[in-house]
Amino acid sequence: MSPKGKQVPGAPVTSRDVARLAGVSQPTVSRALRGQHGVAEETLRRIQEAAAALGYVPSQLGRGLSTRSTRRVGIVAAELTNPFYPHIVEPLHSHFERAGFRSVLFTERENNPVEFADLVDGLLDGVVLTTTLLGSKLPEELDRRGLPFVFLNRRSEHGEGDAVVVDNVYGGSLVADLFVECGHRRIGAVLGPSDTSTGSEREKGFRDRLAHHGLELDPEITARGGFSFTAGVAGLRTLLSAAEPPTAVFCANDVIALGALDEATRLGIQIPQDISVVGFDDITLAAWNRFDLTTVHTDLFNLAAVAADLLLKRIAEPTRVHTQVVQRPQLMLRGSHAQLPAKARQRRPRASKKS
Amino acid sequence: MSPKGKQVPGAPVTSRDVARLAGVSQPTVSRALRGQHGVAEETLRRIQEAAAALGYVPSQLGRGLSTRSTRRVGIVAAELTNPFYPHIVEPLHSHFERAGFRSVLFTERENNPVEFADLVDGLLDGVVLTTTLLGSKLPEELDRRGLPFVFLNRRSEHGEGDAVVVDNVYGGSLVADLFVECGHRRIGAVLGPSDTSTGSEREKGFRDRLAHHGLELDPEITARGGFSFTAGVAGLRTLLSAAEPPTAVFCANDVIALGALDEATRLGIQIPQDISVVGFDDITLAAWNRFDLTTVHTDLFNLAAVAADLLLKRIAEPTRVHTQVVQRPQLMLRGSHAQLPAKARQRRPRASKKS
Repeated sequence: MSPKGKQVPGAPVTSRDVARLAGVSQPTVSRALRGQHGVAEETLRRIQEAAAALGYVPSQLGRGLSTRSTRRVGIVAAELTNPFYPHIVEPLHSHFERAGFRSVLFTERENNPVEFADLVDGLLDGVVLTTTLLGSKLPEELDRRGLPFVFLNRRSEHGEGDAVVVDNVYGGSLVADLFVECGHRRIGAVLGPSDTSTGSEREKGFRDRLAHHGLELDPEITARGGFSFTAGVAGLRTLLSAAEPPTAVFCANDVIALGALDEATRLGIQIPQDISVVGFDDITLAAWNRFDLTTVHTDLFNLAAVAADLLLKRIAEPTRVHTQVVQRPQLMLRGSHAQLPAKARQRRPRASKKS
Repeated sequence: MSPKGKQVPGAPVTSRDVARLAGVSQPTVSRALRGQHGVAEETLRRIQEAAAALGYVPSQLGRGLSTRSTRRVGIVAAELTNPFYPHIVEPLHSHFERAGFRSVLFTERENNPVEFADLVDGLLDGVVLTTTLLGSKLPEELDRRGLPFVFLNRRSEHGEGDAVVVDNVYGGSLVADLFVECGHRRIGAVLGPSDTSTGSEREKGFRDRLAHHGLELDPEITARGGFSFTAGVAGLRTLLSAAEPPTAVFCANDVIALGALDEATRLGIQIPQDISVVGFDDITLAAWNRFDLTTVHTDLFNLAAVAADLLLKRIAEPTRVHTQVVQRPQLMLRGSHAQLPAKARQRRPRASKKS
């Protein structure tokens, strides 16, 4: 070790040691190693060499201990290979990045939920929850512990907390209206999990609006599963095995709808000529020409941006009043739905008619 | 504050304070708040209440300072909305999770690369690099600083370091062979960035093998862009605008190929009747019936698993010998390629013939 280093053996190396060895001031070392501007290249090189020689690691840890902030936020999402989640994780991540915060990923898996102890380890300033079940206890626990969080897309029955969600009931009703306007009476659905706000609210909006039109969902042509591609594949198969298959199918999200479209392709069923299929969310893939999926458009980028913003405000001011943002979706008409041909309309619907 | 707490005003709350208030030992508090087993529910509740009353936050920060480990690893990837990246980020993340490590996401964006200073802040035990450019200086800097890293899928010209990659040259040659066997002579390509190992190696393998068959890539029907859906859309459009369009197109990865297929759909071009399209990687979407993409199969899950494993070994033993794993890909024959009809074969190829 260089005598200029004046290192006490065993004592931790500090930025002062690096400064001494490099022959610069300690603040210059800090600036240089944080990658800040205003440090000449030659100086930077000298400082890096000194740091390497001494084995010095500038530590966010130390900074975190003194400020109780690590500028790390957690994002709880489902598996990223589910094509829905990148649509919210990516913009969240990018918004946090712009604000100088790093994102730590937590993945909720079947039978392996993200738990309180995973999140509260002192290394996170706050958490975005995107996979919350209606009955989840996690939000209350975070509340009690004072770890800031925001609900994104889904929320729990625990009313408290910042939340950014879609008006799912309204969105579901739009699909019911569309099908009825197109002359469909034999209407099926591949629903989402009833223990999620998105699943239960989209179902409610769809059912209630069908009832308004004097129709009801026949359990024979109603399937329920996860918000997944495979649920869409299995769901369509179930619906088609009914004695009288549907002429139109509402899928509780786009990923389910993509599975249904894919299964239709495999079976040689024409969309929309044979069956109309409509999704929910409007993820990027829905607009691809190969799918051309009619869906309920939500602005996922905006949802994520608002959620990131709310969380950062909550971190800065823990006691501020809770904000709940509800985004109103709209129909995105593409090529996967069609008018029921006049001939088919003459078939009497099985559903009860009130009007 | 409870008198049992014996808190000195202003002093930081420690796990000892919580233990005293809850009437348990300090190790029990640690175990309970780390979510470890063997703590009775009633005890856990008492400890949580005591911690909440005192505002105690158990800190990984403190642990990190003493052990120099935070059990956090960085994953440098491109935007997750690019459908390729979830296929490696998700399994990486899941492998690290199983080993007790959290993943921090770093996103490389055009004109905004992830830099040394972003990664070396003392909060990461190691990094997985998945977006490295051939000329990147980052690996050497990480080396000098002693921050463990592993190359996944791409590598830089800097030879040192653990790496898990695909034999891209071989993979490219497989596609050339397939096209030639199917009778194609007018062969085009939508290539990837030449400053990436994946882009340049796949191109080399494809070109060299075409040359072996006495063919060459006509610049008129060769496009180059990013590894993106839009590059595939634009690329196919360029190739089709040639005086003599290709009958077969190699796309340097599946995401490019999906863009090409989608543009073909928009233009009413039949795949594979009008043009054969082959990709590289075999991401999940390639197997969907709507795409049915013939491609070069790589085992992305295995690549990620091996990379995660190598990084963890490197973290545990920084001086171990570097390991470079090269995975051999194979053709996955699906429905997007076809024999050139005999009639079309009679057209003389423009490409030079040596054999």
